[in-house]
Amino acid sequence: MTVYMEIVCVGNELLIGKVLNTNASWLGKQATALGVAVKRVTVVADDVEEMAAAFREVLKRKPKFIVSTGGLGPTFDDKTLEGIAKALNRKLAVNQEALRMVKAKYKEYTKTNNIPEGEMTPPRVKMATLPIGTEAILNPAGTAPGVRIDVDGIVLIVLPGVPKEMEAIFEASVAPLLRQAAGDVGYFELSIYTDNIMESVLAPFIDKVMHDNPQIYIKSHPKGRENKPHMELHLSTIGKPSENPQICLSKAVVELAGLIKGAGGEVVKVETEVTV
Amino acid sequence: MTVYMEIVCVGNELLIGKVLNTNASWLGKQATALGVAVKRVTVVADDVEEMAAAFREVLKRKPKFIVSTGGLGPTFDDKTLEGIAKALNRKLAVNQEALRMVKAKYKEYTKTNNIPEGEMTPPRVKMATLPIGTEAILNPAGTAPGVRIDVDGIVLIVLPGVPKEMEAIFEASVAPLLRQAAGDVGYFELSIYTDNIMESVLAPFIDKVMHDNPQIYIKSHPKGRENKPHMELHLSTIGKPSENPQICLSKAVVELAGLIKGAGGEVVKVETEVTV
Repeated sequence: MTVYMEIVCVGNELLIGKVLNTNASWLGKQATALGVAVKRVTVVADDVEEMAAAFREVLKRKPKFIVSTGGLGPTFDDKTLEGIAKALNRKLAVNQEALRMVKAKYKEYTKTNNIPEGEMTPPRVKMATLPIGTEAILNPAGTAPGVRIDVDGIVLIVLPGVPKEMEAIFEASVAPLLRQAAGDVGYFELSIYTDNIMESVLAPFIDKVMHDNPQIYIKSHPKGRENKPHMELHLSTIGKPSENPQICLSKAVVELAGLIKGAGGEVVKVETEVTV
Repeated sequence: MTVYMEIVCVGNELLIGKVLNTNASWLGKQATALGVAVKRVTVVADDVEEMAAAFREVLKRKPKFIVSTGGLGPTFDDKTLEGIAKALNRKLAVNQEALRMVKAKYKEYTKTNNIPEGEMTPPRVKMATLPIGTEAILNPAGTAPGVRIDVDGIVLIVLPGVPKEMEAIFEASVAPLLRQAAGDVGYFELSIYTDNIMESVLAPFIDKVMHDNPQIYIKSHPKGRENKPHMELHLSTIGKPSENPQICLSKAVVELAGLIKGAGGEVVKVETEVTV
């Protein structure tokens, strides 16, 4: 059974196009490779009401995992935990484990730099103020801890927006959860690049190959123009080793390449990217 | 009064992290520069039910504009118009104006290339099959027309996913609508880069400057680590010329820079990007 995940990215900078949403793309790639299907990405503003509404909607759709990025830092506009607390009708309170983590970071910074450690000011305590009944996750690459919240069988993971911190927490503490939930399924993909065949001519071939190989999903990505056609055909499948997903993929490629050549198209190259 | 827009991006390739969502970022930048506020970005799969659900949710939030990207091509997985038709409870039918546009494109391709024009096969007619009561928009850079749908005062613009086609239609036919709706407001932004001051120390300064300059929004973007702090502080405002938005911005910058220097921080550079 497919394990679903949704991604929620918080940040005005994403909405105004100042920052490209590389976090959603990185998380999508990781989850897919682990056998978990990303069903939706939602990007919302740094606004408590907006976030609360978005998280409520995502929770209602009941994916197995929700991973959010952004809004965990010390400044006023870092409001994700407030938004989630509102969505869940939970109060915010200082989490002792999170406070210990934040304190330890500032201690470390003092030792390795000439920056004064200073006291646990409100902006610093803020990073340890979590919705009640939640779990702090160690941030190996930065200050603000991640947060895990379990709600009605849904696992909500709250990560910072700085890519290297988000990635470090994901790899250490989130990937193992996804891998375990997905079981022994693997994701396999492969691309065929073609020249001199229009997408509108390829369309029925894709239909036929998907019909003959129901485990395989094929998506066409036009790289040229319809009148100077250069296409990427991306074939993918997800399956257990016992279902021989790689053999299924090879079969579909051979059939598709045959149809393309038969119609005067040219298969320029076949590129394999196997990720497990 | 703020004019709101939402963006809906359709495509499995975005969810699996195969393709970075540059379309959302490009559209966000354009809309912001035109004085329209992007409130949310939603990324959904190439699945009619998923899309219908997502479009229904977006319509319920009643932004003035909805701009979607992706899923207008000739292949089976190009299902956006089907998803929208389902969300709106409208039937799909061949739109004569769209059909004329698609036919003209294939005629042009024949003239300029050695590719046979061929007939209007089902995949080609598909690109001219729109929800009823909608308007085809000329695609200056590709085959599939864009679509405009008016629903309860909301303008839904449906664009292709290929960036240069999406951008060409937006610039020719969508930007003027946004500009007119936003009126004479302009968006102004500016970044201060700082060294040697931790985000947790900056936090109360940002609060103070935003309190003193209520038209200005300030967002901190950590570029280093909390222990080796290098920060970008992004100040932005939106306003009519009569509100002197640029003067407001300058005032806030001067106040913020003063506070940073007073706390031993260093202002490395100030970067202006004025977009109207």
